[in-house]
Amino acid sequence: MVARTVARKLIDDHLVDGDPVAGEEIALRIDQTLTQDATGTLVMQELEAIGLDRARTDASVQYVDHNLLQADERNAEDHAFLRSAAARYGLWYSKPGNGVSHPTHMQRFGVPGATLVGSDSHTCAAGSLGMLAIGVGGLEVAMAIAGEPLYIRMPQIWGVRLLGELPEWVSAKDVVLEMLRRHGVDGGVDRVIEYHGPGLAGLSAMDRHVIANMGAELGATTTVFPADDAVAAFLRSEGRADAFRPISADPAATYDVTDEIDLSSLEPLIARPSSPGNVVPVRECEGEPVHQVVIGSSANPGLRDYAVAAAMVDGRQTPESVSFDVNPSSREIFSDLTRSGATFRLIAAGARIHQTGCLGCIGMGQAPASGQNSLRTFPRNFPGRSGTADDAVWLCSPETAAASALTGVITDPRAFAREHGLGRPDLRLPERASVNTAMLVAPLPADQAAAVELVRGPNISALPELEPLPDALDLPVVLVLGDDVSTDEISPAGARALPYRSNIPKLADFAFTPVDESYPARARDVGAHAVVGGRNYGQGSSREHAAITPRHLGLAVVIAQSFARIHWQNLVNFGVLPLTADATDLEPIRAGDVLHLRDLHATLPGSARLTVRCGDRAFTATHRLSPRQVETVLAGGRIRQLAQQR
Amino acid sequence: MVARTVARKLIDDHLVDGDPVAGEEIALRIDQTLTQDATGTLVMQELEAIGLDRARTDASVQYVDHNLLQADERNAEDHAFLRSAAARYGLWYSKPGNGVSHPTHMQRFGVPGATLVGSDSHTCAAGSLGMLAIGVGGLEVAMAIAGEPLYIRMPQIWGVRLLGELPEWVSAKDVVLEMLRRHGVDGGVDRVIEYHGPGLAGLSAMDRHVIANMGAELGATTTVFPADDAVAAFLRSEGRADAFRPISADPAATYDVTDEIDLSSLEPLIARPSSPGNVVPVRECEGEPVHQVVIGSSANPGLRDYAVAAAMVDGRQTPESVSFDVNPSSREIFSDLTRSGATFRLIAAGARIHQTGCLGCIGMGQAPASGQNSLRTFPRNFPGRSGTADDAVWLCSPETAAASALTGVITDPRAFAREHGLGRPDLRLPERASVNTAMLVAPLPADQAAAVELVRGPNISALPELEPLPDALDLPVVLVLGDDVSTDEISPAGARALPYRSNIPKLADFAFTPVDESYPARARDVGAHAVVGGRNYGQGSSREHAAITPRHLGLAVVIAQSFARIHWQNLVNFGVLPLTADATDLEPIRAGDVLHLRDLHATLPGSARLTVRCGDRAFTATHRLSPRQVETVLAGGRIRQLAQQR
Repeated sequence: MVARTVARKLIDDHLVDGDPVAGEEIALRIDQTLTQDATGTLVMQELEAIGLDRARTDASVQYVDHNLLQADERNAEDHAFLRSAAARYGLWYSKPGNGVSHPTHMQRFGVPGATLVGSDSHTCAAGSLGMLAIGVGGLEVAMAIAGEPLYIRMPQIWGVRLLGELPEWVSAKDVVLEMLRRHGVDGGVDRVIEYHGPGLAGLSAMDRHVIANMGAELGATTTVFPADDAVAAFLRSEGRADAFRPISADPAATYDVTDEIDLSSLEPLIARPSSPGNVVPVRECEGEPVHQVVIGSSANPGLRDYAVAAAMVDGRQTPESVSFDVNPSSREIFSDLTRSGATFRLIAAGARIHQTGCLGCIGMGQAPASGQNSLRTFPRNFPGRSGTADDAVWLCSPETAAASALTGVITDPRAFAREHGLGRPDLRLPERASVNTAMLVAPLPADQAAAVELVRGPNISALPELEPLPDALDLPVVLVLGDDVSTDEISPAGARALPYRSNIPKLADFAFTPVDESYPARARDVGAHAVVGGRNYGQGSSREHAAITPRHLGLAVVIAQSFARIHWQNLVNFGVLPLTADATDLEPIRAGDVLHLRDLHATLPGSARLTVRCGDRAFTATHRLSPRQVETVLAGGRIRQLAQQR
Repeated sequence: MVARTVARKLIDDHLVDGDPVAGEEIALRIDQTLTQDATGTLVMQELEAIGLDRARTDASVQYVDHNLLQADERNAEDHAFLRSAAARYGLWYSKPGNGVSHPTHMQRFGVPGATLVGSDSHTCAAGSLGMLAIGVGGLEVAMAIAGEPLYIRMPQIWGVRLLGELPEWVSAKDVVLEMLRRHGVDGGVDRVIEYHGPGLAGLSAMDRHVIANMGAELGATTTVFPADDAVAAFLRSEGRADAFRPISADPAATYDVTDEIDLSSLEPLIARPSSPGNVVPVRECEGEPVHQVVIGSSANPGLRDYAVAAAMVDGRQTPESVSFDVNPSSREIFSDLTRSGATFRLIAAGARIHQTGCLGCIGMGQAPASGQNSLRTFPRNFPGRSGTADDAVWLCSPETAAASALTGVITDPRAFAREHGLGRPDLRLPERASVNTAMLVAPLPADQAAAVELVRGPNISALPELEPLPDALDLPVVLVLGDDVSTDEISPAGARALPYRSNIPKLADFAFTPVDESYPARARDVGAHAVVGGRNYGQGSSREHAAITPRHLGLAVVIAQSFARIHWQNLVNFGVLPLTADATDLEPIRAGDVLHLRDLHATLPGSARLTVRCGDRAFTATHRLSPRQVETVLAGGRIRQLAQQR
């Protein structure tokens, strides 16, 4: 066999279909899944709709880390629903307060060589341990829990060789910021990033988590590291030495794309507002006033990330102009921080210690004032993500964050250390972490699980049933839209609609209302119907609700000039037939016209083209479905398809 | 001189006007003020409108403890505004994270013998140190900051004699719950509660804070304790031994009303949903399932309140069904808890440690699921106050809370201790607290303060100017309303309106909209106008916005059959003339009619009666203004009145 990379070994070990050639569709067996609460309620509803009896993975874990503010009863009711669903379907349940999914999963479930999918874009962080970990949509996770393979396009493998050692006051965050500085936010698209080389020796497993996590910001399919001594040491400290097995690239392995970073040449970096790709050296921004500094999130979740900040602020005070916020990333890390005295030192320096969770990283609280600079160790600073429309969020390492929190202006930690005679902190991380699994509820035995009733608050519905595609359709056109319709226009977010994200019948009342207030009523009126779009239909957020809610109101076919990739996939997953046609054929269609389609069951599997009649006119539309996807649409979506198979 | 109570000594020492006979109006000199962020933004706008140069109190402190979630930019912008206003007007500024106002004020500013007013109903907690501390409306606080006296009705003095010692697992919270069990939520109305007797010897200053704080739930004007050895010890532990001076009742002092509690006879008590007055023994509720337990708030803010819980949960685990939430009440207490190992023990037992602040106590997060029991060491459990409309909140001691958190059902801590062989915990409170004042920003020197510009976010306005009352008024009637109109109908709360609480012109667009959507537009149209009400006009919440916002739109006179006390006072404070008239005279008035009033400047000071003409009809209306209040209304409200005097 040819020499292989780590990524290729992981793929080969899990390949159940397809040819692992870049660009081809492949199917992978999935060992583990991860869901968080913001996406998890829909995944659990999907499991219910599939009729799943019990998870078929090695481990599936439902985390609660996003919606922890509990401004009203809905968060707590989501938590109760998720707890009951985890018990019913044989999942682990990680209670509110146990921790952010990514570090917690790594600590408790990380296994070199395993595959993981998660309904969270930073799932890729588990690549730190030599896992193949991919963030996907909710239904893909539901399918994986049900034992179905994951279908992806085989990525290119991008080898990044690390050499040298990080200088003082430069840390893992600066490594991934350097990648973003070089390659921008789409540098990793359709690639797996694989780090290798002698520079790895100086990076702990948690350092690698920082780098793997923000591979998402490069647009990469995922990031992988070898499973080496650092991984073995990490698993030992978690009391899970048995989970270790070594994985490394064969010495002669080659990569599709290559790059190299000399760690010793790096300096503290910072991403300016408002993109993770706007990276510059910290020294170029020194002196900018700072009003908020936040340390936390899955992008800097390790004990050392907090400990280094605690060591820097020890005996010092943050100025009155700064809010210094610290979000412990997991209960275990908070325990170790507290045991070591770091929590006390942070409080003494003026830190606001917040509950364990994602918090400000996903815009749940900690919103800064308009236009005032906020420095965060988070992974993302897209405009408005902080909760403040006119925000100014910067991304940096804990070292840069702590130095700036103390001075009240953006500060290069090297300059701060020089000025204050600060040597490299002795972090004294414990040999053995404060492992305590009491907030991680194990799956119920199968016989008890089968008897569990889902706990549904007033605001959590079952997923509506979706019917198979009829052989013939006569569809009134309810909406005719222009180019670049976004999923925000199809299923709006915001304070009015978002509370109903676990209640599809309710949420359906908001479908398309940003472009036409009358759509829900008219759609309910006519039942099965079509929508006509222009180019790039369904761009933007990946939310599945943009497919489910109009489908629930009767949407059967969308005809457009072209589709955005993820929404197209979501339409297929939920049994809506996406067709493309020429602008000249679509232009004459008006709302109220009726489209006639015939012999779909015979035509779709055999031909990419079918005839659409409209009044006394006929034109040709095209579908781009694979045979697998044709089956999905005919069945009425993947959920119904899978439910039928079992 | 006759033998005097503590309350009477405090009143006599500050009396600047009136006769201290129960029921008579008296005026008191105010030494200190306290504002929190939810009410403080309006108070700071009032100082600006008065044209105050610098606070005239011994100490005025602006705390930030209520709005800490920062779901969007508005909280952070309020904080920035408050910081600038504190700097401008010579106030102390307590940063977000420094602590809840009541325990923090007691720790840093408590002085036996001083008077304190605060725009927070639990200001009375400072009575624990032998202060006369009264919760009042925002404008009263602004006036006090400006050096004006506080006008109140002289209360009765209610002596409650304590004897005996609290049994194991019974604590201060049970004492005040016993008061509520005996006397209900209006038992203290128009009274000062003064605790005395040999039982005091076993109650620390922080224990007394618990009891004084929840005097608000009895409806009392305030609660006072003597300044004795326990107070001296407290001040010593805070490094402020110099602030102590002893105050006690003269041996022969008598009380207007009396009661007695034998502490040794008490048992753990609990207030059932949804009133602090629904008090029963814990043992009567044992076994009720519990889904959330929260320890924190100004009702149980002391180190011992957390330490006893930490000792009880040490080495134990809360069950999966319980969310165990802990809100440190101040940075100092959080430091001491962390230093002592209590924080570590709480985390290990499954606690979610939240940021320092009020949080769930004022419905800012921590909302429970609908109908699921939540046990809290808070002072209030009014329906919906938790943020959940259909809530079930119980109030209890930290001991009962910790025992119930461990069992998942309501549990008498005595029974828990028996079952687990738990002896009285050795709490080992430190001799000297972790005093650290770096988050408490001192007033600027006067010359620097004068140069400070207020930092106004897009959502913070200046208070609109209000004109003096003209001598003659011809007022179109814009609204004619029925009985029991509440301030919620005059100035609605809720998610649409509340964000504008610091922006009167914006908030005015919501005035009266719950009863008539067209009011703001019609009022703006006609300018000066009248509103006609029925009986009990202006009942409910004390919010000043219900007077300011219609006044801003031109409201000059309200004529009703009767008024609720606080709203009547607020109308006067903001220069609206409240008149009463008979139902038979009011009944014929229709919206659009014009009321004519003449010679107001001459009539109001001399007579309680004046003539109102309406079409070809005339009737007599009555005002109940004191000469002082007549001047206020003629001047256009207290702010304008004071601005003119300086």
